[in-house]
Parts: sequence; C-alpha cells; structure tokens
Amino acid sequence: MSWSTRLRYRFGDIDDAGIAYYPKLLHCFHCAFEDWWSDALHHPYPRLLHDDQLGFPTVKLECEFFAPIRYGDEPTVHLGVLRIGTGSVEFGMWMTKGGAGKPLCRARILTATVDMAKMQKCSLPEVWRERFAPFVIREEDFPRGR
Amino acid sequence: MSWSTRLRYRFGDIDDAGIAYYPKLLHCFHCAFEDWWSDALHHPYPRLLHDDQLGFPTVKLECEFFAPIRYGDEPTVHLGVLRIGTGSVEFGMWMTKGGAGKPLCRARILTATVDMAKMQKCSLPEVWRERFAPFVIREEDFPRGR
Amino acid sequence: MSWSTRLRYRFGDIDDAGIAYYPKLLHCFHCAFEDWWSDALHHPYPRLLHDDQLGFPTVKLECEFFAPIRYGDEPTVHLGVLRIGTGSVEFGMWMTKGGAGKPLCRARILTATVDMAKMQKCSLPEVWRERFAPFVIREEDFPRGR
Amino acid sequence: MSWSTRLRYRFGDIDDAGIAYYPKLLHCFHCAFEDWWSDALHHPYPRLLHDDQLGFPTVKLECEFFAPIRYGDEPTVHLGVLRIGTGSVEFGMWMTKGGAGKPLCRARILTATVDMAKMQKCSLPEVWRERFAPFVIREEDFPRGR
Repeated sequence: MSWSTRLRYRFGDIDDAGIAYYPKLLHCFHCAFEDWWSDALHHPYPRLLHDDQLGFPTVKLECEFFAPIRYGDEPTVHLGVLRIGTGSVEFGMWMTKGGAGKPLCRARILTATVDMAKMQKCSLPEVWRERFAPFVIREEDFPRGR
Repeated sequence: MSWSTRLRYRFGDIDDAGIAYYPKLLHCFHCAFEDWWSDALHHPYPRLLHDDQLGFPTVKLECEFFAPIRYGDEPTVHLGVLRIGTGSVEFGMWMTKGGAGKPLCRARILTATVDMAKMQKCSLPEVWRERFAPFVIREEDFPRGR
Repeated sequence: MSWSTRLRYRFGDIDDAGIAYYPKLLHCFHCAFEDWWSDALHHPYPRLLHDDQLGFPTVKLECEFFAPIRYGDEPTVHLGVLRIGTGSVEFGMWMTKGGAGKPLCRARILTATVDMAKMQKCSLPEVWRERFAPFVIREEDFPRGR
Repeated sequence: MSWSTRLRYRFGDIDDAGIAYYPKLLHCFHCAFEDWWSDALHHPYPRLLHDDQLGFPTVKLECEFFAPIRYGDEPTVHLGVLRIGTGSVEFGMWMTKGGAGKPLCRARILTATVDMAKMQKCSLPEVWRERFAPFVIREEDFPRGR
C-alpha cells in the first residue's frame, strides 16, 4: 500500500519558465522519502544514518514529467516500494494534484543499501525488509502518465 | 505575539563542513514566511501574488548565526513583525531547538510592499496592516544570541 | 562529437553523507546544458527562451550514479546529442574526473521542443537541427559506468 | 583592490516573481568567495578545509538588494576585504551589470576563523593575513546602492 504526504512547492523553486525546475522535483521526492522515514516508519532518516550507520543512496533513477507544477500547487507525493532485493530497494514515487488522478510526474528510484561507516554496499537488514513490506505496491499500481 | 512552525532541515541542505549552509537557512526563513501566510493568515502567498498582485520582496537583511544546525535537527522557526511602515514591513525571524531557549540564528528582514503587476513600490493595504497587527513584537522580544 | 566543460562542485551542494546530493548533480547537468548554448552554440539559452520563445523542457530522464563526487572535485561535464526527433531531442550527459576515463554518473535526458508563448509542443526548427548536428554521438559513445 | 568574476545566473534559480530569489544571490556570493580562493589566492577552499583544517564560516551578514536580477543577466561579482581582525575577516561583496556602475546588491559578510578539526574559533594564520592584504578596500570603496 502506498504512503502519501502533502508538499508545499516553494516560491524560490521556480524556473525562468514559471514552473517547477525538475531537479527541485527530485529534491521534493527526496524530502518525501525522508518524511516517510519520520512519519510512516517512525525512525527518522538522520537516526538511520548517524546511529545505525545505514543509508540508501540512489544508484539509478528514471523519471517522467507529464504536466507542469506551479507555485501555489500543493501536490501530494506518493511513495510505494516496487522491489526489495538483497542489497537494494526500488521505490516508485509520484505526484498528484489533490491526492488523486493522473500523476504530474513519477520516478522509479533504485537505491543501494550502504554501510555508512565503511561507505560500502551491504545487505538490507531483516528488520527493514519487514518494516518496508507493508508499503510494497505492484507494478500496475505505479501510475502511468497521461 | 510571535508565530512559530516546525522545520525539517534536509539531508541535501548540508555543506561540506557537515552543518547547515547559511543561504539554505535564509531559504528556510522564506519557507516559514510562506507558511505564515498559509497557516496563520489563511491567505497563501501565491494567492497574494497571483490574485491580489501584491508581494513583499526583501530589500534589506541582517542575519546572525550563533550555533550550527545539523541534519536531524528540527528547529522551530519563529516570526514576529518588528515594524509596519507605509510601504514596508520589517520581520524578525529566528530559530530555536525545541521551540525555546537561545536562538541558533536570527534575521531582521525588511520587505517592501510591491504592486506585482507594475513591479513598483506601493502602500501597504489597510487590510494587511490590520491582519499583521497581532504578530507585532517589541524589539526586546526579538531574541539576541549567546 | 561531444562537447565538454569544467564544473566546480560547490561547498553548499553536499549532503549529510559528505558527497554530492543527486538532485544537485541534475542541476549541474542543466547548468552545463545552459553553458553549451552560450559557449558552443553562441546563442544563450535565455535568448532562446525570451527572444525566440523556444524551450527544451525535460520530459523523461534516466540517470545512473556510479561513483561519489566530493567537494573539491572539479568534474568535467560532457554533452552529446543522442537523437534528434521531429519535436524532441535526446541528450546524453556524463561526468568524468579529469576529463577522461569511466564516468562518475550519466544521464539520458529527453527534451520536448516547446513554443514558450503558447506553452505547447512544436517542431524543432530546421536551424537548430543543423546547429545540433555536429554534437551528435553514437549510442556506443555514451559511456557506460563501471 | 577588489577582485571580480563573472557569474552566470541560472534558469532554475528564479523565483515565482520571475527574478533572482535572494537566498540564491547569497549562494552566488559564496560561489564567488570560493572562486576567489581558487583563482585569486590559488589555494582552493576545499584544500583549505580538508588539508589545512581551516574554515571561514559566516557569523554575521548584512545585505541590501537594490535592483532585480533576471535570467540572462551575467552579473559581475566583486569581492573586497573590509577588515582583518584577530580571529575574523569581514568581506564586502557586490554585484554589478557589465562590471561597473551602481551595484545591484551588496553584502557585508563577517566570517570567523575556525579550526575545522576542533570546530572552534582560532586566530587567523599570519600567512592568510598577508595573502588577504592586497584585497583590502576602504569603506568608501564598498559601493552604496541607488
């Protein structure tokens, strides 16, 4: 089941065409990923990094931008887990207006599990495999654009 | 009386010294200013800009940085109105850890009232003078650092 | 033939893991794209947008991150044109240390040709098809990671 | 004598009013400060931080914004040293169009000298006092706005 949060797109995050600048949308996806750790898993990402020495850096990314986002839009950001591997987790993230309907953009984000002390790939700890399980979505629930 | 909101300082907003990069703290103050419009005045800033054609660009800024902010800190951002002029409003903003105590940083932000259609200075409309009044703070309530 | 430029990765563009935050790397790719307009095509991108009312917004993106980038690295950013369509252009961009060797990251960026006055897709003007031609690279020259 | 460099203001660094967002201008000043280390002092700032364990974090800031900056502007950023203290250095920075004339904005930036290993204030090493000396400007050469 996917998880979602509301996002305030900001005055200073606009490009010269008057719409959202896509690197900022990827920043928004990362912010929502951090909020998922805090608000859904109740284990803030800084605690994971600093105390557990575990991180999920992005190694591969695929994004599609379907419709522009403007200042004043407060898109809903959705997060689902598409695949849990041995040492990797693939997330599907997307934005909608008003929380439903066709996505404005979506991203498939492949992360590696990294031991932050050694800065080396490691296996996904069992505890997180279990905690991620409720957020798994099927490929057909990762919404396609218009 | 000052208004306050909680802020999540973000993973990607850190500098190479491992602490908050000060231009990002100024971005955070602007985000809190936008939240004040949405959550305290119940008139989102994009609506003010787009529908009312009114804006409050910063013309002068004085900031002091007293203590570093790290990833995982969720500072409280405080906003008070220091002075309401004919065509200008001065805000006092500061951050604290846990909502109280000595500020981590503070900023005195002088804004001009601008007619966004003409991009020219204009008088502060009476309605906003009234709506800002409850947020006025005295100079001695704008907290000094350590 | 691909084009390249030197990039100063910045003090404030680091994440809490002490390396480049990937949305900032995408910002860097966009900066290099803008520099290509200024320095290779000698027609600054703002002039294209403002005077010619033509823009190249990104509609699809695929990135791979192979190795971390740290503060002090001055990666070379490379740009090649992978495909010129009727109303779209696909760019291949990548970063290397010292201008050669295995890429640190790479991005396949699909842009649409947009009439900025109408904010609608349009055909790629013949003049730009010709000006882009020297920068076309073959798929096998878009370097794979380690 | 002040030092200066050209700056490309970027497509994605615009706000919803269509002009430069002031926290980004402060980022630009920091980028120019880093360029001064690389291009004027020939000792890149990352080398100072990493090898010499010395840093110049900002402790106080005063900025004035006189005229808007738009996408396509390539302002010149000027840097002068206003005051060299025992454990602090005050910089004066400003931007002009075309390298001369009235400033578009200016900032007085007070930095502390910090031992990055201990994250504690320290004295300014004599070598830097000498290297900074040629860039000292008089208060009256720090240009006032319109």
